[in-house]
Amino acid sequence: MQNINEIDDLVRLISKLPGLGPKSAKRIVLKLINNREELIKPMAKALADVYKNISRCKICGILKPTSVECNYNHCEVVEKQYDKICVVENLADQWSIESSNIFKGYFHILGGTISSVGQRKEDLLIDSLVERLGKGKIDEVILATSATVEGQTTAYYIQDSLKTLKVKVTKLAQGLPVGGEIESLDDGTLFSAFKNRSDLSSNSD
Amino acid sequence: MQNINEIDDLVRLISKLPGLGPKSAKRIVLKLINNREELIKPMAKALADVYKNISRCKICGILKPTSVECNYNHCEVVEKQYDKICVVENLADQWSIESSNIFKGYFHILGGTISSVGQRKEDLLIDSLVERLGKGKIDEVILATSATVEGQTTAYYIQDSLKTLKVKVTKLAQGLPVGGEIESLDDGTLFSAFKNRSDLSSNSD
Repeated sequence: MQNINEIDDLVRLISKLPGLGPKSAKRIVLKLINNREELIKPMAKALADVYKNISRCKICGILKPTSVECNYNHCEVVEKQYDKICVVENLADQWSIESSNIFKGYFHILGGTISSVGQRKEDLLIDSLVERLGKGKIDEVILATSATVEGQTTAYYIQDSLKTLKVKVTKLAQGLPVGGEIESLDDGTLFSAFKNRSDLSSNSD
Repeated sequence: MQNINEIDDLVRLISKLPGLGPKSAKRIVLKLINNREELIKPMAKALADVYKNISRCKICGILKPTSVECNYNHCEVVEKQYDKICVVENLADQWSIESSNIFKGYFHILGGTISSVGQRKEDLLIDSLVERLGKGKIDEVILATSATVEGQTTAYYIQDSLKTLKVKVTKLAQGLPVGGEIESLDDGTLFSAFKNRSDLSSNSD
């Protein structure tokens, strides 16, 4: 490459994105350069728009247009539509759960886990969760943090923070993933699967 | 996802990039959103800068700052530094050859091949190649087009266009790629490898 600063900057930035390295970043920059009007121009605008117009709600953590109140997730709005809140670590988790259509209710995005490197407990939206629940409109809090040490520590901490409130606190089941072969599972998953085994001899479903 | 237009636009644009689909585009957008100052802002600027400041030279096809003459590739400059021109199909080919450090000389980027779909012969920088060579400062033209039907057709067409000029025209060797196993090679490659076999019995290297 003939060292054009603008191009180098772009390659460097793109290679920081997840799943991309210097080689794929170069390939992407080539595609961009060959599509000035169809890609570079609208993408520069789209990024600037997101930067300018979108931010996280300081109460529930979801993304929202900066200019409006957070009315999607029942933060500022008084009408009660759902009676459950699903607590997740980050936005990606929210998107996964939403696209699965399994859960209908509000979300609360912590913004990380307690024991993540460089993560201060005060930055997680735990206090605002307690405050949200304190308003008494929610019946159940589902702790959908990851089945990692960090995720489970965070879930435990939240459970502890909520014990004075009259709200049901649940967490996701652990066990075999669908399609999981016994021989390829780790010991932790096997342990959970054994510990939480269900009784097939009773008639109840 | 809660259908924020700005986010949807960004996901849609990013999923058009090579090697990326809707899922990886979402993952990238999440990373971007979580790094507003470190990624979104500089990337919006980098893209706008490339759009504004960088364009292809109309003579040799390489990228250059829009505001200056093309002095990298000996288009407008009179001093002669190299005596070879390497003709490639596109910018990616130039970058590959440059990063291999095998070739020292000028480049000429055609911008496609003759028989590509939607590619008009007049859009390829073949006339400007003839003009560049007509100035008489170049000793050898290396046709480094791909070993595809389109690439070879283009090479043949260029060779034909240059036959009145006193310039040596060469093209890249065809044969076994390094690490290529005979059993996994296609017939065309094997044919080239046999046809261009080298004589080991003579003492010359």
